[in-house]
Amino acid sequence: MTLVVQKFGGTSVANLDRIRHVAGIVARHVKAGERVCVVVSAMAGHTNQLVEWVTGLDPVHYDRAEYDTVVASGEQVTIGLLAIALQKLGIPARSFLGWQAGIRTDAAHGKAGIVEIDPQPLLSCIEAGVVPVVAGFQGIGPDGRITTLGRGGSDTSAVAVAAALKADRCDIFTDVDGVYTADPRIVPRARKLARITYEEMLELASLGAKVLQTRSVALAMRYGVRLQVLSSFEDVPGTLVVDEDEIMESNVVSGVTFSRDEAKVSVLRVEDRPGVAAAIFGPLAEANINVDMIVQSVSRDGRHANITFTVSRADLPRAVEILERQRERIGFERVDADADVVKVSVVGVGMRSHAGVAHRMFRTLAERGINIQAISTSEIKISVLIAEEYCELAVRALHAAFGLDRTDG
Amino acid sequence: MTLVVQKFGGTSVANLDRIRHVAGIVARHVKAGERVCVVVSAMAGHTNQLVEWVTGLDPVHYDRAEYDTVVASGEQVTIGLLAIALQKLGIPARSFLGWQAGIRTDAAHGKAGIVEIDPQPLLSCIEAGVVPVVAGFQGIGPDGRITTLGRGGSDTSAVAVAAALKADRCDIFTDVDGVYTADPRIVPRARKLARITYEEMLELASLGAKVLQTRSVALAMRYGVRLQVLSSFEDVPGTLVVDEDEIMESNVVSGVTFSRDEAKVSVLRVEDRPGVAAAIFGPLAEANINVDMIVQSVSRDGRHANITFTVSRADLPRAVEILERQRERIGFERVDADADVVKVSVVGVGMRSHAGVAHRMFRTLAERGINIQAISTSEIKISVLIAEEYCELAVRALHAAFGLDRTDG
Repeated sequence: MTLVVQKFGGTSVANLDRIRHVAGIVARHVKAGERVCVVVSAMAGHTNQLVEWVTGLDPVHYDRAEYDTVVASGEQVTIGLLAIALQKLGIPARSFLGWQAGIRTDAAHGKAGIVEIDPQPLLSCIEAGVVPVVAGFQGIGPDGRITTLGRGGSDTSAVAVAAALKADRCDIFTDVDGVYTADPRIVPRARKLARITYEEMLELASLGAKVLQTRSVALAMRYGVRLQVLSSFEDVPGTLVVDEDEIMESNVVSGVTFSRDEAKVSVLRVEDRPGVAAAIFGPLAEANINVDMIVQSVSRDGRHANITFTVSRADLPRAVEILERQRERIGFERVDADADVVKVSVVGVGMRSHAGVAHRMFRTLAERGINIQAISTSEIKISVLIAEEYCELAVRALHAAFGLDRTDG
Repeated sequence: MTLVVQKFGGTSVANLDRIRHVAGIVARHVKAGERVCVVVSAMAGHTNQLVEWVTGLDPVHYDRAEYDTVVASGEQVTIGLLAIALQKLGIPARSFLGWQAGIRTDAAHGKAGIVEIDPQPLLSCIEAGVVPVVAGFQGIGPDGRITTLGRGGSDTSAVAVAAALKADRCDIFTDVDGVYTADPRIVPRARKLARITYEEMLELASLGAKVLQTRSVALAMRYGVRLQVLSSFEDVPGTLVVDEDEIMESNVVSGVTFSRDEAKVSVLRVEDRPGVAAAIFGPLAEANINVDMIVQSVSRDGRHANITFTVSRADLPRAVEILERQRERIGFERVDADADVVKVSVVGVGMRSHAGVAHRMFRTLAERGINIQAISTSEIKISVLIAEEYCELAVRALHAAFGLDRTDG
């Protein structure tokens, strides 16, 4: 008998009507003969309310363990309510808090990692013909206190539970009906993908697609959990995230994505001597600022270089300030900052076996007169940094150029 | 060093400002050199919201265990917030959920009884100089699921924690500043009592005074926990609930109270044969209807009796219906119902050693032309049932007659 973990996010359980609707979805699967384990988030907005109360008392230095205790109460409400809604439909169900479900985490309150899940409590429940309704986002730390996994942690809970139960599939119900070749709001001809590989999903998630959290995809990949992204509002098939060998025929590129959360920093006329890169990036790393794309160009005199890199927009002012403070030590002429940039990426495991993807990408952009300011690549993606005003144009052009446009009207 | 358990109800932690205020009270005691363990309720109104969600999904047959899981989330919020507010004032504090505080209950979800409290987690915390902030109203059942103690359960939690910790005192902070000789809204000359005995408090609580739950007073009496009722809004001494031998000089009567939640049922011309009382009260007991005062009078012919008793107003229609259905079996002429009655009581341990209390009570009422419809007594209280319209008059007259009126203007 198939065992499926079904995860419902905050918008899917935002009020009693939606909770009843979710109970209906679960009931349908149970009546179709599947064994189901449910994982839920807090009601949409509820977690924010709880966080506001905490920061209302202490905006910065609040105790992370107390934060977790307060914030974890949100899922406690929805698991009980959904269990009752299921029982009302004649489906035996019972709620499990993180600690009751044996979800053990490390002690990193507010952003804990799952260490292990004892499958026994949930398996006993399932074997007794009862649907477990598990609180996502939370677990229990080594000191017996409640922990939370950080934002988006419910996806991670669902995947971890699916792995522990050796479930056949983990269905992530959300407010979109699957993974698209591009954001349909930008590219009207975007298509929903029936299947996508973990690697591609991982790249898309880290490149700004908000469908799934990077962390949950990485976990699914590691434990071979078959993920499905689908809508809790429409009863249509979603997108299956699977191993590469489960995808018979794939496009060279599976999707085009973009992120506006980018800012460019250029350090001009740096003295070109050994250790200068360390002098620049060391202080940024210490300040917890992530640096993404890096380009270095040597000046005509051969003794100076320009170093350009990107950071997230929120980090831009701090990054510039840190560099200015180190100007003497590093030795450079000036720092330029530019927040009007966007990173556009094409992603696809097909790239591994197809040459010419980069060439096609650069040519497509050049034909539209779009200047590339930086490039970064991995085995299955190519990202370029361009001026923000060209974002939509670039995404649409690349979507067409890689044959992703829908052709059915 | 004195160890005090301080309990704050829902109105005392209704919002962030009040939580900060409560933190200030606790901090003052800690800085004065007391060791403090705090017990809190959920924010006022929050529990009702949670209950509404549960009954919105299933008005009657909802799973009591799931109800407990949902409803117990309210205290989870306030313990975390109060711990943070205390830390913000420089007072080390940490929250404890019922199960973390070792509060073990029976399995009666929704109205569980505390079976035992392992004092070790809280004692270790206190010994480390940290103020424990314990979730009232909740515990953990024998099956490892969350239980709640029923309405007013936070008082019971506080007393049980005080007993387990062998605390010197249990302070119940509420929205009134103590126990009065009568309801000050009815009797403007009512006085606040500095001390009252457990027995008296118990009678007052069960007779309708809403200051403390009967259950928590009974528990305090059993374990000799010194209780204090005081206001969280005004910094004035409250009322101490103590053993009789701690009260040097007491009035014959400590208080006058009344309950409007009464209804009178008269079963007229019952055949006076053995077993007839059982025939009447058996079916009522089976229907979970509590019967309070009972009066039986024999009719002139010596072969019939009238039996009068009181039930709570909510039970009146059911009580009448049950009797009517048994008319043949019981054998009576008719049933009269009267909801316009009130029970007025005088309470005082001094009664044990003073004769004439009943006489003074009856005479006082007779002088005002108030007819007594039923009487019930215990060792330390006398209750009479009278027509509701005389309620205020009777309470004020008795308050004056027993020398309870404030004389200071």
